[in-house]
Amino acid sequence: MASIVEVGPRDGFQMETTFIPTDLKVDVINRIARAGVRKIEATSFVNPKVIPQMADSDEVMSRIERFPGVEYAALIPNARGARRAIKAGVGSLRLVVCCTETYNQRNVGMSVGQSVEQAREILEIAAGAGVRAEVTLALAFGCPFEGFVPEERVVALARAFAEMGLREICIADSIGVANPRQMRRMMTRLQAEVGGRAHLSLHLHDTRGLGLANVVAALECGIDTFDASLGGLGGCPIMVGGTGNIPTEGVVNLCEELGVATGIDIGAIQAAARLLQNFLGRELPSPVLKSGTRNQLFERIGQML
Amino acid sequence: MASIVEVGPRDGFQMETTFIPTDLKVDVINRIARAGVRKIEATSFVNPKVIPQMADSDEVMSRIERFPGVEYAALIPNARGARRAIKAGVGSLRLVVCCTETYNQRNVGMSVGQSVEQAREILEIAAGAGVRAEVTLALAFGCPFEGFVPEERVVALARAFAEMGLREICIADSIGVANPRQMRRMMTRLQAEVGGRAHLSLHLHDTRGLGLANVVAALECGIDTFDASLGGLGGCPIMVGGTGNIPTEGVVNLCEELGVATGIDIGAIQAAARLLQNFLGRELPSPVLKSGTRNQLFERIGQML
Repeated sequence: MASIVEVGPRDGFQMETTFIPTDLKVDVINRIARAGVRKIEATSFVNPKVIPQMADSDEVMSRIERFPGVEYAALIPNARGARRAIKAGVGSLRLVVCCTETYNQRNVGMSVGQSVEQAREILEIAAGAGVRAEVTLALAFGCPFEGFVPEERVVALARAFAEMGLREICIADSIGVANPRQMRRMMTRLQAEVGGRAHLSLHLHDTRGLGLANVVAALECGIDTFDASLGGLGGCPIMVGGTGNIPTEGVVNLCEELGVATGIDIGAIQAAARLLQNFLGRELPSPVLKSGTRNQLFERIGQML
Repeated sequence: MASIVEVGPRDGFQMETTFIPTDLKVDVINRIARAGVRKIEATSFVNPKVIPQMADSDEVMSRIERFPGVEYAALIPNARGARRAIKAGVGSLRLVVCCTETYNQRNVGMSVGQSVEQAREILEIAAGAGVRAEVTLALAFGCPFEGFVPEERVVALARAFAEMGLREICIADSIGVANPRQMRRMMTRLQAEVGGRAHLSLHLHDTRGLGLANVVAALECGIDTFDASLGGLGGCPIMVGGTGNIPTEGVVNLCEELGVATGIDIGAIQAAARLLQNFLGRELPSPVLKSGTRNQLFERIGQML
């Protein structure tokens, strides 16, 4: 069994320059829940001047249906965002800390150390409100400003957060530079050193066509939870050349073909992605959205013959 | 060490409806050889009425530089094509036999059995002329008309060709339906049953985003030779929804990142792909062509800072 965390409504939508109407956001999030996804990063509570696409986060959270068993998460940049998210009824707070000083400074205007301290504060706020908190370690496999990121640094950060009491740590290849060998080494080590205290998940981008190869490597290390974005929406907000998240349709298809259940109706995800595709007026970069799954192909042909 | 067989000038070009000038074909083939590729499927000797893009195959073969150590191969559909190819100075003949009756019938108007018999004739023609001959088993992982292809059938065909004396057998996922689990099972079995008598290689398409994940699985089974197409050119001539071959840039990048040398200068391949991209007037579907390799990204950033 593998779990998909749908991050399209946050990581995907935030990259779009055309404002996606709140109605459509709500519709897509509800469709994702109905498709069987058990955790959705529904929005972020950031400064709307910086990311105008997320200006309706309160309204999105208040208007979505709350399907039983579905966890609605939101990205938050700081304590203020955490309080807004809690007020809006978010089930879990996702905080991002970058593994390199340069990127963290550009992303949130703080040193990595300051971000770690801030995480402590947010964890307390979350605990006080009875919501979950988790951290994403961004740029864990390479940074556009600092290049290769030493494994040691990622392990140290993960260890610090696990000791702080965070139970969910997401390791992110934010710019899509990881390869399956690095993935296997990194996740084996993290599982050994931190896996006993925190659950480890992955956030991958498909920039160099290795997104799904990295999923295979991670599954082999016992990783069972992956962020993914319907239609492969998304990108890297700072750097050019970063492409979308690994597509939800692609991860679900891969898992099912490997005999790993996801509980997700891929057709319903494709339908939701097509709604967005129509609105955005361009083809989304998800191969399985374009070509369908193997079973869909075989069925279509059977009907044509 | 892994070997790439560049099939763009055949499998890629044949899908293009605009005629690629012979000059450009020759230039691209020469660039590929200069980049370090040791085997190039340079053209096909088919009926130009069926595939007009390949109408200049004799001229292409006569005008390309012959780099020492580079094997120039051509796809041939029958004995007539084999004789034309030999006359044109081709170093190895590539014959395609489909693993399903329906597809083989539509592809060459023969039963699979007739194609096997024809292979015997072609092998004799090749031996007589002192050129190599090899066979590609197409649709080995699934057929758009017959669906799932039993492993048994692929193994039986591979065994028949090995017994016939073919030393190179290429297993093809012509429509991109394979997954890493199926790949591992199929190639492990083929290696055990046929690997002692023939060298096995792979021809993959990236239709469902699993092309490079399948390469990783195959490398783990000891497969060291992969067809690939610069820029990810190509498609499936019969079926809609089939996308390009696995991109040469992507396979080279993956191998190098896994510590498997290819001897290929990725920058020179990207430059050749960009020439084609400019001529065709559309972005080719190769992620590494778009985003560059990790090292290229890190270098670019280093220069910007």
